[in-house]
Amino acid sequence: MRTFGKNESNIGLAPGTLVHVGEKKAEKVVIKILAYNSEKLIEKKLETVEDCLAFKDQPDINLWINVDGLDRVDIIEKLGNYFNIHPLTLEDVLNTGQRPKTEDYESYIYTVLKMILLDTKKEEITLDQVSIILGPNYILSFQEREGDVFDPVRERFKNPASRLRKNGVDHLAYSLIDAIVDNYFLILEHFGEEIENLEEGLIIQPRPETLKAVQKYKRDMITLRKSVWPLRELINGLQRVESDLIKETTRIYLRDIYDHTIQVIDSVEDFRDILSSMVDIYLSSISYRMNDVMKVLTVIATIFIPLTFIAGVYGMNFEYMPELKWRWGYPAIMLAMSLIGVSMFAYFKKRRWV
Amino acid sequence: MRTFGKNESNIGLAPGTLVHVGEKKAEKVVIKILAYNSEKLIEKKLETVEDCLAFKDQPDINLWINVDGLDRVDIIEKLGNYFNIHPLTLEDVLNTGQRPKTEDYESYIYTVLKMILLDTKKEEITLDQVSIILGPNYILSFQEREGDVFDPVRERFKNPASRLRKNGVDHLAYSLIDAIVDNYFLILEHFGEEIENLEEGLIIQPRPETLKAVQKYKRDMITLRKSVWPLRELINGLQRVESDLIKETTRIYLRDIYDHTIQVIDSVEDFRDILSSMVDIYLSSISYRMNDVMKVLTVIATIFIPLTFIAGVYGMNFEYMPELKWRWGYPAIMLAMSLIGVSMFAYFKKRRWV
Amino acid sequence: MRTFGKNESNIGLAPGTLVHVGEKKAEKVVIKILAYNSEKLIEKKLETVEDCLAFKDQPDINLWINVDGLDRVDIIEKLGNYFNIHPLTLEDVLNTGQRPKTEDYESYIYTVLKMILLDTKKEEITLDQVSIILGPNYILSFQEREGDVFDPVRERFKNPASRLRKNGVDHLAYSLIDAIVDNYFLILEHFGEEIENLEEGLIIQPRPETLKAVQKYKRDMITLRKSVWPLRELINGLQRVESDLIKETTRIYLRDIYDHTIQVIDSVEDFRDILSSMVDIYLSSISYRMNDVMKVLTVIATIFIPLTFIAGVYGMNFEYMPELKWRWGYPAIMLAMSLIGVSMFAYFKKRRWV
Amino acid sequence: MRTFGKNESNIGLAPGTLVHVGEKKAEKVVIKILAYNSEKLIEKKLETVEDCLAFKDQPDINLWINVDGLDRVDIIEKLGNYFNIHPLTLEDVLNTGQRPKTEDYESYIYTVLKMILLDTKKEEITLDQVSIILGPNYILSFQEREGDVFDPVRERFKNPASRLRKNGVDHLAYSLIDAIVDNYFLILEHFGEEIENLEEGLIIQPRPETLKAVQKYKRDMITLRKSVWPLRELINGLQRVESDLIKETTRIYLRDIYDHTIQVIDSVEDFRDILSSMVDIYLSSISYRMNDVMKVLTVIATIFIPLTFIAGVYGMNFEYMPELKWRWGYPAIMLAMSLIGVSMFAYFKKRRWV
Amino acid sequence: MRTFGKNESNIGLAPGTLVHVGEKKAEKVVIKILAYNSEKLIEKKLETVEDCLAFKDQPDINLWINVDGLDRVDIIEKLGNYFNIHPLTLEDVLNTGQRPKTEDYESYIYTVLKMILLDTKKEEITLDQVSIILGPNYILSFQEREGDVFDPVRERFKNPASRLRKNGVDHLAYSLIDAIVDNYFLILEHFGEEIENLEEGLIIQPRPETLKAVQKYKRDMITLRKSVWPLRELINGLQRVESDLIKETTRIYLRDIYDHTIQVIDSVEDFRDILSSMVDIYLSSISYRMNDVMKVLTVIATIFIPLTFIAGVYGMNFEYMPELKWRWGYPAIMLAMSLIGVSMFAYFKKRRWV
Repeated sequence: MRTFGKNESNIGLAPGTLVHVGEKKAEKVVIKILAYNSEKLIEKKLETVEDCLAFKDQPDINLWINVDGLDRVDIIEKLGNYFNIHPLTLEDVLNTGQRPKTEDYESYIYTVLKMILLDTKKEEITLDQVSIILGPNYILSFQEREGDVFDPVRERFKNPASRLRKNGVDHLAYSLIDAIVDNYFLILEHFGEEIENLEEGLIIQPRPETLKAVQKYKRDMITLRKSVWPLRELINGLQRVESDLIKETTRIYLRDIYDHTIQVIDSVEDFRDILSSMVDIYLSSISYRMNDVMKVLTVIATIFIPLTFIAGVYGMNFEYMPELKWRWGYPAIMLAMSLIGVSMFAYFKKRRWV
Repeated sequence: MRTFGKNESNIGLAPGTLVHVGEKKAEKVVIKILAYNSEKLIEKKLETVEDCLAFKDQPDINLWINVDGLDRVDIIEKLGNYFNIHPLTLEDVLNTGQRPKTEDYESYIYTVLKMILLDTKKEEITLDQVSIILGPNYILSFQEREGDVFDPVRERFKNPASRLRKNGVDHLAYSLIDAIVDNYFLILEHFGEEIENLEEGLIIQPRPETLKAVQKYKRDMITLRKSVWPLRELINGLQRVESDLIKETTRIYLRDIYDHTIQVIDSVEDFRDILSSMVDIYLSSISYRMNDVMKVLTVIATIFIPLTFIAGVYGMNFEYMPELKWRWGYPAIMLAMSLIGVSMFAYFKKRRWV
Repeated sequence: MRTFGKNESNIGLAPGTLVHVGEKKAEKVVIKILAYNSEKLIEKKLETVEDCLAFKDQPDINLWINVDGLDRVDIIEKLGNYFNIHPLTLEDVLNTGQRPKTEDYESYIYTVLKMILLDTKKEEITLDQVSIILGPNYILSFQEREGDVFDPVRERFKNPASRLRKNGVDHLAYSLIDAIVDNYFLILEHFGEEIENLEEGLIIQPRPETLKAVQKYKRDMITLRKSVWPLRELINGLQRVESDLIKETTRIYLRDIYDHTIQVIDSVEDFRDILSSMVDIYLSSISYRMNDVMKVLTVIATIFIPLTFIAGVYGMNFEYMPELKWRWGYPAIMLAMSLIGVSMFAYFKKRRWV
Repeated sequence: MRTFGKNESNIGLAPGTLVHVGEKKAEKVVIKILAYNSEKLIEKKLETVEDCLAFKDQPDINLWINVDGLDRVDIIEKLGNYFNIHPLTLEDVLNTGQRPKTEDYESYIYTVLKMILLDTKKEEITLDQVSIILGPNYILSFQEREGDVFDPVRERFKNPASRLRKNGVDHLAYSLIDAIVDNYFLILEHFGEEIENLEEGLIIQPRPETLKAVQKYKRDMITLRKSVWPLRELINGLQRVESDLIKETTRIYLRDIYDHTIQVIDSVEDFRDILSSMVDIYLSSISYRMNDVMKVLTVIATIFIPLTFIAGVYGMNFEYMPELKWRWGYPAIMLAMSLIGVSMFAYFKKRRWV
Repeated sequence: MRTFGKNESNIGLAPGTLVHVGEKKAEKVVIKILAYNSEKLIEKKLETVEDCLAFKDQPDINLWINVDGLDRVDIIEKLGNYFNIHPLTLEDVLNTGQRPKTEDYESYIYTVLKMILLDTKKEEITLDQVSIILGPNYILSFQEREGDVFDPVRERFKNPASRLRKNGVDHLAYSLIDAIVDNYFLILEHFGEEIENLEEGLIIQPRPETLKAVQKYKRDMITLRKSVWPLRELINGLQRVESDLIKETTRIYLRDIYDHTIQVIDSVEDFRDILSSMVDIYLSSISYRMNDVMKVLTVIATIFIPLTFIAGVYGMNFEYMPELKWRWGYPAIMLAMSLIGVSMFAYFKKRRWV
């Protein structure tokens, strides 16, 4: 089971030592820069981290530097130095076992959350950590690898009239968080359908594979829950943070995400509830089917066992068995056996066993 | 399962873009106006949205404009402009995945809740979103389609002495919310009866169909719960909102709805409890019936299997089997077998298996 | 299942309309008056509601007017007018679907609670609503029909030295509530015994009827819980109400009821717990008994089926079966079969199946 | 099930009437007095309640009067009068259905709690109520009968250097409560062992008696819980009471009891958890054993039923059955049957049924 | 089950008496001293407790005295006297049944927590109590025996540039607590893997041993929970303690541990959830396998029992059974029986029983 928190490789290290802690997901580090204001928009992939200095501290220009891949500690350290990021923040950026949280470092606000990617083929979810550092006119975002849920945000940048372009970087921060939370709904919708299918199958044709799938989804829900529950607190923290970095207008938008977060939490809890009751339904369905099997066995056995006994009696080799000599003995006994069989069948019919 | 929240079509859109999000339930948009004070009452279906301007801002006239159908974004945008409604409110009106909530926009109070319609034939519930915008002397209400639970309110308007006519639009807002909450009781009563029937059937004749029905009602309860839980907070918010739009006298009436809301919540939780325990009862009932089946099999089999064995012994073809030659061998063995059979039956009788 | 809240007949009515809502339990209305102070005591059944005016507003006289039956709305309305009771209070008195609550109307305090009557023959509980209006020197109490739990209170009135006679009407109000809560203990004790019997039966002789009884008691507990939970808040409200109607000395006594209420709530929750686990015990007991049945079947079948096979072999009609000609063939095979039978029985004995 | 609260004999009585309510556990009342300061110690059994007056109000003497048995209401009333105890307190002392609580009467602090006595032979717990009245220089304690958990406290008195002797009566009150809470640990340890044994038996040899024992312990836990939960609040109350009767130094010691109380509560909840899951384990174990039984039946039946059929075929009496005449027919068919039997056995072996 | 709290040997003793309460885990007491500042580092094993005085109260030297083993009460008392430790603290140090907590004694802060050691061979966890006394320039730590989780901390001391060396003893205290909490993650990871294996086995091959293991892990989780839950409060207390002993910089680091603690708590709760549902899965798996067994039995029995009956019929010895004389009687009956057998098999195939 996925657990958050320190990994073995980290345990015992002095706090503050910069090491990438977590699964290696990306081979190399890609830095993309996006410099914008309402008039112009520059989008560029950086060759070296030093290239970003050209864009830094230009008046009236908002900067979004996105780093995909956390393996090159030196690059991240340099970037951190350029923007005066506290070592503890960088440590958190590199350790992908963070619980979603937001922390106010006065010159910037650090937010870390989990982006959920769904591999629909393998029916597997992956948790990627996204760190967002919101400064006065820049945003640094760090992801574990390329490929994210921010494409709609990037698309909106192309429209000069969009709020993203007209507002400051705090609106961009909001948009990124909003994109991550929006994506949760997609994941939940997918889970909703899968769980519904599962339940159908559970009643009709219960199999251990179904049970395994139920357990798998239960675990996924635990993973999701760990990512989503702290979000409520996080958004709350962002709304109430005493900092000029987040403007009043953006705070109203944050209220919207807060509503969404609660909806996500509610859904996760509902799914957990439903999944929990599924094991009981599985058991019930198996019992029901076993009952069916037992009825067939019982009907057949209770009809034929007495008849076989009767046949056995007249198969005995006693010398003095007068019935055996009778002319109508055989038809009479056949008739008697038929009557017994039919009446037993009728009895089971009445009890609705057949 | 029905989840609240953004739908796929909405994800990725810039916040504030007006699009109708949700299932299309109505073909066209119907606007009805009701202008009233204690002396007169005008009820009219509008041809175009511009017609409402004739009634707007007349002194001493309260206005209730009800819009059925959310597909014509242009109409709703126009109406919003006439009454100076904030774009974010209109966005919420159009997105039918809202969680019930109330928001104070100073010049008006926006309230959104869920009206539950029951299709008794299909045993299905539908959630329709109702948005109520309460201004100083007008109410705008938006529904997903025609057909609602407000007919008793409309009926009461015909009586000039009714409180509705004598009081302001805040009393109308209260009455509309009250009508929606009252309707929940009807739904709950219906569910109460259905669940009681289900439980009866569960004990007497457990079948997978019953289990399916239980699961269906469980889901309905989750849906209801999502609509009802936020209501408590909503009514609380309305009671405490610092706004002249809601008069002191109306706040007392809101306390009444608050009580009702808690009763609805309690009942929903009770139903959930009862439904949860039903799967266990189903399982118990199946086990009990299986036990019955097993007893029959066991009684028949354990009586006749030993007897068949005895018959088999005397059906053996050994040359030297003295019993076979005895004159009374056959009657003796028949008697012995009868005795064995009867005594085993008596034993089962004693153990209450037959 | 009993649900509180509006009934169908009431839904759609304008709030404030006086109609008796709820089951009709009494044929006619009986009004009894009890005028008392520490010196004298007058107890009388009133013919008409107007007769109470003779007692009203006499100096130094405390008045308790008890109304049994809620069908005559006119009588209750008149009485309300004499004592200046707010129409909303009268509406609540008449609607028997109230949640227990207390409301301060300044000139009087309105309290509504549920009296539980137990029909020990049918093992059924009935909830009767009791409304208590506590004024400066009068108490109006309304019940759904004659027959209540107040007889011990009435008895105590006969003693001029009793606190009831020496204290004001607030002490009477306390005594009435105390009598209702005390009665809950009787009900709970009865349930406690019934549930214990049930559990005994559940383990020894599980039957669907027992399961039905468990479900019935579960429902009763839900009903009780709905009546009892709000009591805590109610008593709290009475203790803290800022009103001269309840004297300091009486508030101390109310603390006592508060303790009792918590005890009742605790017991109800414990019973719910126990009842919930009973379905599991039922299932376990059935399984245990089924196991017993299966063991008998298995022992008999596994002993005799192989023996029957052997007998069958020597019942075959092959011409060349040398054993059949042997002098000691028959006794030898009988011995062999006995040995097999005995050793299998010993095996089952060892496994504790017999 | 043991429920706290009023007993039948008390219901209907005027509050404040002194009657011993509860089971009569002691035949007579024993009053013991212990007068002490750091220099001297007098321990005495009183003949009459008046004898205590000799010790009362002596300067620099702390007094502990312990009353065993609550049947002689007159004695308790007298004692109450000597020390100016409020009638409501005495009523609570006499009613053994109290919930543990502490009440500040300014001139003294009244504390009531439950002492748990374990009858290890019958495996039964008894709840005895202990009332402690802490005055400025005296403690009155009331128990339902002789025999308590205070012997270690009495032992410590003999040491003049002990804190008990050097501190005031508030330290004695603390020591008494501490002794009662300490005793809970003993009870819990006992239950812990019993429950562990039970669980072992549940998996190895599930029987209805074990289930009954589980239910019994569940009830005991409910009883314990009722005694322990209110303790937390009680100790809290004592720590924060605004009274000079409890000195600052003693309050620090009370913090210690608070910790213990939470440990007791935690353990009780854990035991409840474990006991709850035991019914499921019982059911699982039965099912597992039934599965075992079924496998034996199935293996034997499925091997021999087909063989018996074959034997039956060659037992038929058709005239033209060529096999019967063959020289090697019998050995051939025996071989065939052996092969069938062995291969079926191998199949079951492979499926791990044998 | 492991319960915290007083042990039998302690019950009845006067509070404050110094006795080692708990299991004896160490044979002798080992005292190690570590005196350090950023320039030098002295590490030494003390022969006698008096030797530590040489290091005490040296200016600019931080002292860490670690005591392994609690059996020599005299040594601990002496040490306590040297550093002016309150007797109540020493009592808590010696009683290993403490709940994790922190207490501010002004001149020092006392913290007690549980170190969890895992014996991977026996799959057993042991709880060792660690007491940390943080003074102005010293730390006293007490453990139940040698062998702990502090080795990485000791390793870091060797680096003169490490924060440990540069900061005061409060940073050391933080590091020790951090090491203990870090170790919880290792334990949890181990449990996570074991539980996952268990679950796999539960579905594929359910056995009572698996159930026993589940119960064992459940208990371990209860033990862990008891150690971890109070940690949250503990860290909170340390962060907010009004004392100069903990510097502002260290408090920031404590926030980090707080996050970790919540992660540990979450994981423990998740494991409990998963383990709880495992009993149900076990039951389901057994039922599924029983169903399998039953199907085999039913298929074999229902096919061959009727056929055996037919064979039995033609094994009867009636004189007048014309079929027996027919030339093709035998082949005809064999064909009929084959047809019956095949069609029944086909029927079961269709119902997916084979």
